[in-house]
Amino acid sequence: MLHLKSESGQLWLDQVEKQTDLILIDHAHCEKKAAGTALNLMFAYIEDEELCREMTEIVNEELEHFQMVRQLLKRRGIKFCRLKPGNYGSQLHALIRSQEPQRAVDRLLIAGLIEARSCERFDQLRKHLPDAELRDFYDSLFESEARHHAVYVRLAKHYAPDAEVMSRLDELATAEAAIIAAGDENARMHS
Amino acid sequence: MLHLKSESGQLWLDQVEKQTDLILIDHAHCEKKAAGTALNLMFAYIEDEELCREMTEIVNEELEHFQMVRQLLKRRGIKFCRLKPGNYGSQLHALIRSQEPQRAVDRLLIAGLIEARSCERFDQLRKHLPDAELRDFYDSLFESEARHHAVYVRLAKHYAPDAEVMSRLDELATAEAAIIAAGDENARMHS
Repeated sequence: MLHLKSESGQLWLDQVEKQTDLILIDHAHCEKKAAGTALNLMFAYIEDEELCREMTEIVNEELEHFQMVRQLLKRRGIKFCRLKPGNYGSQLHALIRSQEPQRAVDRLLIAGLIEARSCERFDQLRKHLPDAELRDFYDSLFESEARHHAVYVRLAKHYAPDAEVMSRLDELATAEAAIIAAGDENARMHS
Repeated sequence: MLHLKSESGQLWLDQVEKQTDLILIDHAHCEKKAAGTALNLMFAYIEDEELCREMTEIVNEELEHFQMVRQLLKRRGIKFCRLKPGNYGSQLHALIRSQEPQRAVDRLLIAGLIEARSCERFDQLRKHLPDAELRDFYDSLFESEARHHAVYVRLAKHYAPDAEVMSRLDELATAEAAIIAAGDENARMHS
């Protein structure tokens, strides 16, 4: 259902365990960036009514999650700060084709794959974190990421035939799994 | 309360009367741009908790209004399309000082002045439009623009002493009134 080509391994869980606070701060930034991505897609494809409706809902949800993470940080006395972004997003964005409508397909599918990876990682966190409050927190966020993934894949089909979208999704998912497999020395939600 | 230095005159109301459909399309774009401005401010001043909370609410409201205008256009069979933006926004943005924290003050105050002008114009529309549905529509949106104006002015005071903010607001409001007085040959919400 998530169209991912790999599962996160122990290496990432070890990073999380060693630097949980950093992962939480990065998580807040991820929610903010996800809201920005959805709003940019709305600006770019403003004539697409269904896309605008769905992006409106996604922006609202991502900003709500951003606030939830900020509250969690505050309760735990963790100072929120700027972070050098990991390599994941920029490597994925480099795969976007420049010509429309292929560009729309790629932007939507990549947004969808990022949601899918978040979903898969939230699933790992709700299962493996030693901290019960955090396990519950990631359990509560898990479902919306899966839903957003499905929305993005559906919207990509406004811009190319179904078979073409699914074949491109397969290609991009393979690339995404390779980026994840290479890892990132900085502990991040998508390292 | 709105800190504006002028009232919209008959010239603008004549533009509206002659090209109401165009003004409605531009209004949808204004709501979208207002959401974008609020999200950009959140990205720029992400450490400011109150600003992030307020911007989250404003983004949600602006996108809700965007959807309301789109629905109105649809009910009326008016095709939503891209429009060349008016001169208003770019002329105001040219006034933003480049150094922080002055830049923050100016970005917030200009966002606040745009909300104030929208509020003043929605007030004109709810009083003077011949179309009862549109009068009610602008009456329903009037209050939120005034509220957003007050939020932006309050947040600007995070970045400079009160007296400095109010004196800069006075300067910017004078410039805003001059831009409005010069008008725009293209009929727009802020022409």
